[in-house]
Amino acid sequence: MSLNHGRTQLAIPGPSVIPERVLLAMHRPSPNIYEGELIEVTHSLVPDLKTVAQTKGDVAIYIANGHGAWEAALRNTIAPGEKVVVIATGRFGAGWGDLAKDMGIETIVLDFGMHSDADPQKLEEVLRADTKGEIKAVLTVQTDTASSVRNDVVALRKAIDAAGHDALYMVDCIACLGCDAFHMDEWSVDVMVAACQKGLMTPAGLGFVYFNDKAAQARNGKQPGFYFDWVPRADPEMYYQFFGGTAPTHHIYGLREALDMMVHEEGLEACWKRHETIARAYCSAVEAWGEGDGMHHNIADKTKRSNAVSTITTGPGEAAKMRKWVEENAGVTLGIGLGFGAPGSVEFVRRFRIGHMGHQNIAMTMGVIGSIDCALKALNIKHGDGALDAASKVLAAH
Amino acid sequence: MSLNHGRTQLAIPGPSVIPERVLLAMHRPSPNIYEGELIEVTHSLVPDLKTVAQTKGDVAIYIANGHGAWEAALRNTIAPGEKVVVIATGRFGAGWGDLAKDMGIETIVLDFGMHSDADPQKLEEVLRADTKGEIKAVLTVQTDTASSVRNDVVALRKAIDAAGHDALYMVDCIACLGCDAFHMDEWSVDVMVAACQKGLMTPAGLGFVYFNDKAAQARNGKQPGFYFDWVPRADPEMYYQFFGGTAPTHHIYGLREALDMMVHEEGLEACWKRHETIARAYCSAVEAWGEGDGMHHNIADKTKRSNAVSTITTGPGEAAKMRKWVEENAGVTLGIGLGFGAPGSVEFVRRFRIGHMGHQNIAMTMGVIGSIDCALKALNIKHGDGALDAASKVLAAH
Amino acid sequence: MSLNHGRTQLAIPGPSVIPERVLLAMHRPSPNIYEGELIEVTHSLVPDLKTVAQTKGDVAIYIANGHGAWEAALRNTIAPGEKVVVIATGRFGAGWGDLAKDMGIETIVLDFGMHSDADPQKLEEVLRADTKGEIKAVLTVQTDTASSVRNDVVALRKAIDAAGHDALYMVDCIACLGCDAFHMDEWSVDVMVAACQKGLMTPAGLGFVYFNDKAAQARNGKQPGFYFDWVPRADPEMYYQFFGGTAPTHHIYGLREALDMMVHEEGLEACWKRHETIARAYCSAVEAWGEGDGMHHNIADKTKRSNAVSTITTGPGEAAKMRKWVEENAGVTLGIGLGFGAPGSVEFVRRFRIGHMGHQNIAMTMGVIGSIDCALKALNIKHGDGALDAASKVLAAH
Amino acid sequence: MSLNHGRTQLAIPGPSVIPERVLLAMHRPSPNIYEGELIEVTHSLVPDLKTVAQTKGDVAIYIANGHGAWEAALRNTIAPGEKVVVIATGRFGAGWGDLAKDMGIETIVLDFGMHSDADPQKLEEVLRADTKGEIKAVLTVQTDTASSVRNDVVALRKAIDAAGHDALYMVDCIACLGCDAFHMDEWSVDVMVAACQKGLMTPAGLGFVYFNDKAAQARNGKQPGFYFDWVPRADPEMYYQFFGGTAPTHHIYGLREALDMMVHEEGLEACWKRHETIARAYCSAVEAWGEGDGMHHNIADKTKRSNAVSTITTGPGEAAKMRKWVEENAGVTLGIGLGFGAPGSVEFVRRFRIGHMGHQNIAMTMGVIGSIDCALKALNIKHGDGALDAASKVLAAH
Repeated sequence: MSLNHGRTQLAIPGPSVIPERVLLAMHRPSPNIYEGELIEVTHSLVPDLKTVAQTKGDVAIYIANGHGAWEAALRNTIAPGEKVVVIATGRFGAGWGDLAKDMGIETIVLDFGMHSDADPQKLEEVLRADTKGEIKAVLTVQTDTASSVRNDVVALRKAIDAAGHDALYMVDCIACLGCDAFHMDEWSVDVMVAACQKGLMTPAGLGFVYFNDKAAQARNGKQPGFYFDWVPRADPEMYYQFFGGTAPTHHIYGLREALDMMVHEEGLEACWKRHETIARAYCSAVEAWGEGDGMHHNIADKTKRSNAVSTITTGPGEAAKMRKWVEENAGVTLGIGLGFGAPGSVEFVRRFRIGHMGHQNIAMTMGVIGSIDCALKALNIKHGDGALDAASKVLAAH
Repeated sequence: MSLNHGRTQLAIPGPSVIPERVLLAMHRPSPNIYEGELIEVTHSLVPDLKTVAQTKGDVAIYIANGHGAWEAALRNTIAPGEKVVVIATGRFGAGWGDLAKDMGIETIVLDFGMHSDADPQKLEEVLRADTKGEIKAVLTVQTDTASSVRNDVVALRKAIDAAGHDALYMVDCIACLGCDAFHMDEWSVDVMVAACQKGLMTPAGLGFVYFNDKAAQARNGKQPGFYFDWVPRADPEMYYQFFGGTAPTHHIYGLREALDMMVHEEGLEACWKRHETIARAYCSAVEAWGEGDGMHHNIADKTKRSNAVSTITTGPGEAAKMRKWVEENAGVTLGIGLGFGAPGSVEFVRRFRIGHMGHQNIAMTMGVIGSIDCALKALNIKHGDGALDAASKVLAAH
Repeated sequence: MSLNHGRTQLAIPGPSVIPERVLLAMHRPSPNIYEGELIEVTHSLVPDLKTVAQTKGDVAIYIANGHGAWEAALRNTIAPGEKVVVIATGRFGAGWGDLAKDMGIETIVLDFGMHSDADPQKLEEVLRADTKGEIKAVLTVQTDTASSVRNDVVALRKAIDAAGHDALYMVDCIACLGCDAFHMDEWSVDVMVAACQKGLMTPAGLGFVYFNDKAAQARNGKQPGFYFDWVPRADPEMYYQFFGGTAPTHHIYGLREALDMMVHEEGLEACWKRHETIARAYCSAVEAWGEGDGMHHNIADKTKRSNAVSTITTGPGEAAKMRKWVEENAGVTLGIGLGFGAPGSVEFVRRFRIGHMGHQNIAMTMGVIGSIDCALKALNIKHGDGALDAASKVLAAH
Repeated sequence: MSLNHGRTQLAIPGPSVIPERVLLAMHRPSPNIYEGELIEVTHSLVPDLKTVAQTKGDVAIYIANGHGAWEAALRNTIAPGEKVVVIATGRFGAGWGDLAKDMGIETIVLDFGMHSDADPQKLEEVLRADTKGEIKAVLTVQTDTASSVRNDVVALRKAIDAAGHDALYMVDCIACLGCDAFHMDEWSVDVMVAACQKGLMTPAGLGFVYFNDKAAQARNGKQPGFYFDWVPRADPEMYYQFFGGTAPTHHIYGLREALDMMVHEEGLEACWKRHETIARAYCSAVEAWGEGDGMHHNIADKTKRSNAVSTITTGPGEAAKMRKWVEENAGVTLGIGLGFGAPGSVEFVRRFRIGHMGHQNIAMTMGVIGSIDCALKALNIKHGDGALDAASKVLAAH
């Protein structure tokens, strides 16, 4: 017998749970794309997207996933043959670098492994060594969805400044925009890349590239081609230029609703705080389960953990068994150990990830923690007691 | 700051959580009501509705709520001025009796209070005393949604038989059909009343009256009027007679989907078992919270508790505060202390109810328990530890 | 090959086309039924329902179809054994009388056949002859959905007054509320019966009974039972009394949206006028098709035709063939010849009906007319030319 | 008063009317993107997408609009600095050339104006003159959404062959895939570009690039970058490579439903034939309206008109007024005179376009024609009679 005949809950680190309001907003006829309401709705997205990133700079919206946005960011700023520093703190940081290489860009990869954030000192050293100014940009994720580490965006900025280097500072916030606090202008980030299917609570299909004046300057002389050129998209003369052709009609309505919820109803500060509280609840539960030598969070330093996703290490093979159990019995789908070896490998099957981004509350959080707790008991996986109480305490104290 | 910016969960004892599949099935144009698919779909409901009640008898579907079904059952079987025994074990058992009185039926109320099930011995005595055979029927609920008691339907049947009395045996399963095991034919129930918005997982709007041959005989000479007459509805010559006029088009599609889920996918036995396990998890949590003299289940005898709903007593005023907190902070709506004094009264605000009927799984159960646990902590309401672990243990052992 | 691979259109005289906005409003979780938003939304329906009927009287909402509302109206006003006059101008007028008889009410049926409206003179004569005042009510439809005649509600009122008779005047507006102009108070109608699935654009499942003070007086001493008693429903002390138990949660949200559209966005006067124009367009088309001795409207007198539905007579068997063709090839479902003999009979298969109630515009009207025109051509059914142009002229001139 | 209080109909040439079934399929939670059902559903799209193009070649799916697919086709086959012939028969043919230039590709534009199809003879001449084989590809649209011309894809192929030229033959079917017959393999088309929001009846957001072995060879040595590289997308080792990252989760479900309708239920041949019949109905109506010197189809040669879209010329300013009238009064939105001068210019406001692609039937067709007819009458725009009858005749004869 399965106990999973109720509402399922997707708890992977993206795509996230789409609010019913967003789905309802997308359940509609195609609108006219040359006149009328859609034009107005599209324009209304821009200031709210800027608020979410805390910037007065520009934003270009792409019909694309995060990888498309990565490429867009690079096409507008870096020419083939030019050099960038890639900070790897998990699969996604590394992945952006791989994509750059595919585009013919030379990459210097600073790999900090799967368990810790980037060391600003190392970055500073590399930049100082670049006396000819060949490095055009520093690429990093804020949160890596694989390792669940959160890099210190401010510290890395300071490292660039300390080195007196002119490289563009490009940050990928795909995994955590709206979840982990981010201040693009205050933190002097030049380019920021995001996507809609995580903290922004909209079905996958839109990517965003934010850029400031310095990045806009870098665009000069580059040949991004048509589709990824951010110039017409960020300040379109004609409506169709917003999207380089046909607009993503339904996503526009969905994103409008999601931004209403985040920016106009909850408020961005409260939204960040909510994510922080919920992330801490998950961490407390993991700590309780892991008493002794058992389960533990992938990032030992609590201050470096993302508020959007948690990567957990278990005993050999336990994560995979547990994931299967909760999906079949509890209605919860957890994330795989992406980035830790090939699927099925020893390192892979002892990791799982929990996405806690976007549309999240106490009931959902306790539902996931409770489901994992049941699985541990049902599968006789060794674990400490009190995980649920620990999480409950954190949430109650909010 | 509120942590409730996620998916909300309705945990009142009806209406219950409507599965998304049911809502999607109802999101459609009105169909033709004289020809075509709707006719076929309607006919397909009947055998599945009978399976749900474990009967080969008849079933009439009414566009009405449970109160309408109550009245329908009585109009077909009892004439004004005739006498029935009403078993009251909470507001709903009592309510059926009140409605009978409104219809001009004489009622003998056996009131067993708000905290226990009916005593078959008392029923037997009353029936034995009715030497003239004036009592035409015995009315009882299986589960009372207010007190959350589950009466022993078999024992009450035996009491009627022991008294050698010919009264019809009429059972209200509105609160628990599909949740608590029920065998209409095996248990010799003559009339059973149900509705769609609880275990049957369909938006409120349909009532059901099941009846066997003995009840069909009782219909002779009665004047139920048109709308509640079960004769044409149970075996219609013309399609429109199914519903005494225009069909409840969208509900038909919704109910079809819900019955597919219950009967054809999960299976009725598994569905009952799932409800039992989940109900026990809630009970274990309440027990843990209530260590000492605190919170406790309204029905002391565990074997008498419904699998569909749990009524809980707290310290003075605590239930009301806690309900408010979980609704505002956790996204969970719990049921009020219906039937325990006037809204706002001392007895009322120290009760709450949890509906765990229909579309339920581990994640939802732990989400509700976890939300309550947070509230107890946040509001400094005295409670025992380990409620979550206790519930988790029950669910894990299923 | 079928050309029907596009959006289908239901053009039967009820249920009508449900606006997507109404379906979206109903695509939602069940709400709490004891507290919160639902209470407020329910209360907000009442003034708008009164506006739709142009009354300051009371309205009771029933979870029921139109037949349920018929019975509700009678249970509150007429006791079994009492006498009413039933005006039959089609199946539905006659049907209300049949239902009254089922309830034990004595009926005097004034049958005006299937092709004309009621003669007020006849009514006056019958009432004058009732010197003992035994007749308690006059029952009539405003529009009969079968014949598509529209009775002159004002003239019938005058007949009652001319006879100096005290009978209640009860009008069924199920088929045409919101389509044909209706002024309950100005026209001194005592009881009015309606339902939600036609002009009110909501999935079938709600019936309405409106009543004025005179009707409220008639309620005294009656025993309507519980479910149909209009007293608590029209002015409930407790919310649950609105619906005699569990509220029709999803219909409440659907009806709210529909009333917003009719009353607050379009405006009732404009809504009536729109229906009138569209009905005239259909009539013009039928007239053109029927040049000579062919197809014709069932009601010869144009001033007596409903604005909600049109019943059309064709040559032998043609209506049935044509209906089949448009459903299979054009995507349009037309109404059967209800009330003209048994299904399949000669008189039945030469009639069809077009519903043009509720959510209707030019595109939909021309789509239906165009589809019928195609069918006539495809099936070589004799017909006059210019039907489409004739309809277009009417619509263009609005 | 407006008569537009009914179901609206979008009749622009893309996005087209999305079937309710497709919207329902997209109204769902985000699925897991690493395991489970989504993987299987995605794989199932590929053979059906190939059927739609009548090819055994490869297809790559992009999260992008048609412009993105244009760029993808070029990035995989043409290097910057290389030369292509661009056939312009309307704004979209020309537009693909503009995009190529943005990518640094040299273009030879053969401009055939806005009113006729491409002359194969001209193409042959240009290719014959290219004795050094510098021309790498011939780019053309099958149907131009602006002019509504349909080029003769077979004749252009023959011209290339007659010239003995080795250029790739690249055809844009965005506007007409599934509407106008297309046989990629039989016609020896090397690359074909499409998108989902027109004949494929899915909300805008997916582009497709089909390619055969010859085109696959051309990929060698090109540097398409990551996002547009068709190699991993067409034959992915890992699921995420299908979409170069996060899958377009909801669009996958929507497209699945649309392909079921087209390929598995209606059948592609029937679908093409339906579009042809409906297009001819529109043409007949336009012809009737235009008797004498009035309104006329933009493409004089009937055999060159697309089955997906019709561009119509009216007297000065009439098109714009008429479009406004039908949108406000009839519920129909028609397409603007895209490509005929700047918005608002004389040539622009005397054109309108009708999209009749995808989800279309008789009722919808007659609804649009009827709405236009009403507008012409209401606005006193000179027009011939009998347009509706003419269209009806065509549809009836199917």
